[in-house]
Amino acid sequence: MAVTRLDPWFDSYAERTHGMSASVIRALFSVASRPEVVSLAGGMPYVQALPLDALADTVQRLVRDRGASALQYGSGQGDVRLREQILEVVEKVGISCHPDDIVVTCGSQMALDLVTRVFCNPGDVVLVEAPSYVGALGVFASYQCEVRHIAMDSEGLAPDALLASLDELTRQGRRAKLLYTIPSFQNPSGVTQSLERRRAILQIAQEAGLLVLEDDPYGLLGFEGEPPTALRAWDDQSVIYLGSFSKTIAAGLRVGWAIAPHGVRERLVLAAESAVLCPSNFAQLTVSEYLATQPWQEQIKAFVELYRERRDALVQALQATMPMGTTWTVPQGGFYSWVTLPPGLDATAMLPRAISGRVAYVPGTGFFADGQGARQLRLSYCYPEPARITEGVRRLGVVVEEELALQETFGSPAAAGQSGGSKAQVAVPGPEIG
Amino acid sequence: MAVTRLDPWFDSYAERTHGMSASVIRALFSVASRPEVVSLAGGMPYVQALPLDALADTVQRLVRDRGASALQYGSGQGDVRLREQILEVVEKVGISCHPDDIVVTCGSQMALDLVTRVFCNPGDVVLVEAPSYVGALGVFASYQCEVRHIAMDSEGLAPDALLASLDELTRQGRRAKLLYTIPSFQNPSGVTQSLERRRAILQIAQEAGLLVLEDDPYGLLGFEGEPPTALRAWDDQSVIYLGSFSKTIAAGLRVGWAIAPHGVRERLVLAAESAVLCPSNFAQLTVSEYLATQPWQEQIKAFVELYRERRDALVQALQATMPMGTTWTVPQGGFYSWVTLPPGLDATAMLPRAISGRVAYVPGTGFFADGQGARQLRLSYCYPEPARITEGVRRLGVVVEEELALQETFGSPAAAGQSGGSKAQVAVPGPEIG
Repeated sequence: MAVTRLDPWFDSYAERTHGMSASVIRALFSVASRPEVVSLAGGMPYVQALPLDALADTVQRLVRDRGASALQYGSGQGDVRLREQILEVVEKVGISCHPDDIVVTCGSQMALDLVTRVFCNPGDVVLVEAPSYVGALGVFASYQCEVRHIAMDSEGLAPDALLASLDELTRQGRRAKLLYTIPSFQNPSGVTQSLERRRAILQIAQEAGLLVLEDDPYGLLGFEGEPPTALRAWDDQSVIYLGSFSKTIAAGLRVGWAIAPHGVRERLVLAAESAVLCPSNFAQLTVSEYLATQPWQEQIKAFVELYRERRDALVQALQATMPMGTTWTVPQGGFYSWVTLPPGLDATAMLPRAISGRVAYVPGTGFFADGQGARQLRLSYCYPEPARITEGVRRLGVVVEEELALQETFGSPAAAGQSGGSKAQVAVPGPEIG
Repeated sequence: MAVTRLDPWFDSYAERTHGMSASVIRALFSVASRPEVVSLAGGMPYVQALPLDALADTVQRLVRDRGASALQYGSGQGDVRLREQILEVVEKVGISCHPDDIVVTCGSQMALDLVTRVFCNPGDVVLVEAPSYVGALGVFASYQCEVRHIAMDSEGLAPDALLASLDELTRQGRRAKLLYTIPSFQNPSGVTQSLERRRAILQIAQEAGLLVLEDDPYGLLGFEGEPPTALRAWDDQSVIYLGSFSKTIAAGLRVGWAIAPHGVRERLVLAAESAVLCPSNFAQLTVSEYLATQPWQEQIKAFVELYRERRDALVQALQATMPMGTTWTVPQGGFYSWVTLPPGLDATAMLPRAISGRVAYVPGTGFFADGQGARQLRLSYCYPEPARITEGVRRLGVVVEEELALQETFGSPAAAGQSGGSKAQVAVPGPEIG
């Protein structure tokens, strides 16, 4: 109540605003950004690997020769040449569409916001993988959606669990507005849906008249073979596909996109114009120029090699140092591995001690809307160099060993209720844990 | 209904989405963009006047030397150095604040969206000048606000009308969440609040506990004397101030900001992170580098000279060519003059004939939420060169003369109800009429 009184406008806020809260974890992350801490928390792409000199020359040329366009307002739907170039990018995940089907957004986070804005009334049900992307959970919370989690297994979202959830909704006389899924190299689990699994999920959605929101920021960052085929490749009416240049070019440009069925696309454009008028021409034309003049496919291969090496460093270090009873996923692409601690441990309660031990991660509960994930945590290998990853995991191993020793002495902190504080709290994402 | 059936997801949209509609006017503007049409419609700044070579070199240096930051995710609140530099900009309108009070947004349109998101439940009342910025009306409509217009006179928003509206709300047992005002060189009216008027409005707001949303994109673009003092200069608790680099540097960068009381600012940051994760570091650091290394204040003076010359061309042409009974405002800064046609004419009904006559404007009804403005229209002088402005107004004069002749022959189209179609329709803004 003391806090309330300090803010004279507290009683004026909209209902949705009272649900917005900064994660308690965020305060810890300001400590975690100290150089002595190895952060395995952030999802920052390693943009240092870009050809910065070439990109600098590209941008210089753009502003000098086409500044009058690059610095001006543009269309709410996004630059038409860039939308044509996006066709080449999404072809790699099997999508064939028309530039008119694409809406360019200020990062794919904005596309997530717009889709939810266009579809979801307060109280509407959204089906979401368990665990899922913090930023999506934040958007669903800010539109006051009811998130129902669908279990995953080693092949991703489980069709049986999806069917059971749909049956339960039908029994309750309700329906889901969206199924939100990250089929490839999922954040945070690192799991990828098999092709067979994708077909099964899509068929269930089609039969149920369920709209699929397919989020695919990592699709081109697979370590083996061809990029997995997107669900959108098989169905242009039941799927909204979200893509991003944040991980294949640079996150600081904030350029993403949505591919949507015609009527939905029209509404996304109207919502986008209300939200930001238009995406930045400066950023869009920079991406467009880069795609047109630089070897962007070779650059993606270079990123893949770099991330594969870091994934290997992470997995080897986990094998070498983590105590018995700890498990983790071995991602075939993307940025993340999902770790399950030995029974009785609590990743949120352990975090301050990990940061004292100079290593940071994101506790699992943040990736669920319902308080699951107390024993779990996400490790990112995208940003630190391999030797740092190895050292970070070594430190984490020491912290987990100490937790186990404490548990043996004093009993389980989870059983003692220490994890209760973070339960069922959906915090708004910080960019640092994207 | 036929349209409905074509979109399989029509029944899935949120309530707010059914209120979003593309303006009928927008179809006309795709015609108006032909080179033979003189467009006095768009609010595009004349970015060609920027020192493009110097800006190109600035951006090149930024990406080459600080690419790892410029291309990376940033903070949700915005770059701290840029926020410090914004202090120097807002000092010119009398504002003294702390970098922590500032939230950087993807253009000030996004700040409008975030403020409304944080404060307004469906049905909440927002007080808005009559007429007002299309993009703000679009945001208020998309959050299902009830807009109540407050009359303006030659000194801007009328205190008596504001008091009357507040009294009416009190009688109805209701309150307003926000008063939205553009005190300087208002869009679309071109009117500027006197200092006395600003004091009076602020005092009323303070006494009523009413939060003021002050939108100030044109404040530094005055043709005479010092920039008008912002309301925020006198009160850091009752005013949220919105600023933008769109008109003082370049619209294509999409960098604006909000200055807000502490508790509000915290919530704006959370809402911003949910909406876009973070504003573009690439655009922000470009602005920051430009401010640090280029003579930005001299450049604003150059813009002011250019816009003053165009304002003069517009006003002289109006005096020379418009039929009796036509009136217009003479703006002391900014981009717009507000024209009232002779009685009986309808600016919306006239628009197709104006475009046939190779001149375009924005009809007045778009700047009201309640169907006012049928006899009015907005002329922008910011983008075309003076000779084009003169020719455009000459063409407009011919069209108005023809309308008057038609009216004499067939009676008033307004009286015949031809303007009914556009009443009370709030369309989402297109960037072309920003």
